[in-house]
Amino acid sequence: MPMTQIEQLLAIEAIKRLKASYFRFVDTKDWEAFASLFAEDVLFDISSGHFDCILHSPREILEVVTPRLRDCVTVHHGHCPEITITSDTTAEGVWAMEDKLRWAEGSDSPIRALHGYGHYHETYRKIGGEWRIQSMKLTRLRLDTEPWEAAG
Amino acid sequence: MPMTQIEQLLAIEAIKRLKASYFRFVDTKDWEAFASLFAEDVLFDISSGHFDCILHSPREILEVVTPRLRDCVTVHHGHCPEITITSDTTAEGVWAMEDKLRWAEGSDSPIRALHGYGHYHETYRKIGGEWRIQSMKLTRLRLDTEPWEAAG
Amino acid sequence: MPMTQIEQLLAIEAIKRLKASYFRFVDTKDWEAFASLFAEDVLFDISSGHFDCILHSPREILEVVTPRLRDCVTVHHGHCPEITITSDTTAEGVWAMEDKLRWAEGSDSPIRALHGYGHYHETYRKIGGEWRIQSMKLTRLRLDTEPWEAAG
Repeated sequence: MPMTQIEQLLAIEAIKRLKASYFRFVDTKDWEAFASLFAEDVLFDISSGHFDCILHSPREILEVVTPRLRDCVTVHHGHCPEITITSDTTAEGVWAMEDKLRWAEGSDSPIRALHGYGHYHETYRKIGGEWRIQSMKLTRLRLDTEPWEAAG
Repeated sequence: MPMTQIEQLLAIEAIKRLKASYFRFVDTKDWEAFASLFAEDVLFDISSGHFDCILHSPREILEVVTPRLRDCVTVHHGHCPEITITSDTTAEGVWAMEDKLRWAEGSDSPIRALHGYGHYHETYRKIGGEWRIQSMKLTRLRLDTEPWEAAG
Repeated sequence: MPMTQIEQLLAIEAIKRLKASYFRFVDTKDWEAFASLFAEDVLFDISSGHFDCILHSPREILEVVTPRLRDCVTVHHGHCPEITITSDTTAEGVWAMEDKLRWAEGSDSPIRALHGYGHYHETYRKIGGEWRIQSMKLTRLRLDTEPWEAAG
């Protein structure tokens, strides 16, 4: 039985909110809540010109992302979601994004700061009544970095 | 009688729009329209590391905010609302935010410019058929300020 | 027969998505898809303090906009839509916006970079079952430009 129009609108709102939580939990470093937003078999691809990074589980995401963002103030903003419901338990979406990261003095980050722009290309799956991020791939429009020496 | 699903979606859209008006009216300095967005017994807390500021009525908001933003070009953007309807006349929400303020030469502002990021934590109440902001508290992820001497 | 509430919510979501496509197609330079978002008799006004620019068809938009954005990395973000459905085939909306443009070395652009903030004031029309941009006018809160010499 296909979704009604109202069920589709409710699903779109729920997915917008899922991604809003994604941004808020990463910036407030609520890591356990962050991990809970992903399907267990998630495909999380934040590769960029600077590095390859494809992760395959919520646990792996935490293991890789949290040390990178230690001693880092992050701001991640998402804009203009385009969400398409593809079945009663699957959906896909594109989000414009901007991220601004600044590491503290003494951090072992290779750069002092990063300011980027791009799009998240995502799929979602409803699991146990809750929408989760099934896959995420980031493409970049622009990525500006600031070396440590510029801080002097 | 609890809200139907469609009434909840309509309320969420109305609250998103209320906050959109908040941002637009402050940046275009339409102060009377700005004041009309708040409940008469609003609790408006824009305290930050730099100052304490808790205000208790639309009139008090105007009296405190408008002189601070005189001779100031402001840009306030809101992102990724997470709105929860808690009864047919109450709701709560979190918004990611970014603000960028620049005072004109000759202003009595202690700083030349400010660029901040954070979250609004809000409650809403439906009063006379219209959603209003009942309380607002701003938390900061990051706040960069520019002193006057940097302008030279 | 007037729209039902659910039809209004579906129309609002469709118009948000139309504008999301507008931003994505301009930044990814998918120009044919970009042109398809406008009514044939569109009124497209991106005049600013720097120049007058009112265009009257999708073809004219492409002829004027695409050469200006050659050799330019663009980021356009839209925020906090206020969409009003005015009939079953017409609507109006206001969007907060930010744009950040940077031309490549050797470009014939008179400036190296631009960073602006403002609002789009728009009307929409449903044509052949699809919402299209009927008119668009950009007003600016702030517009910062960077001359070429600053790059040295």
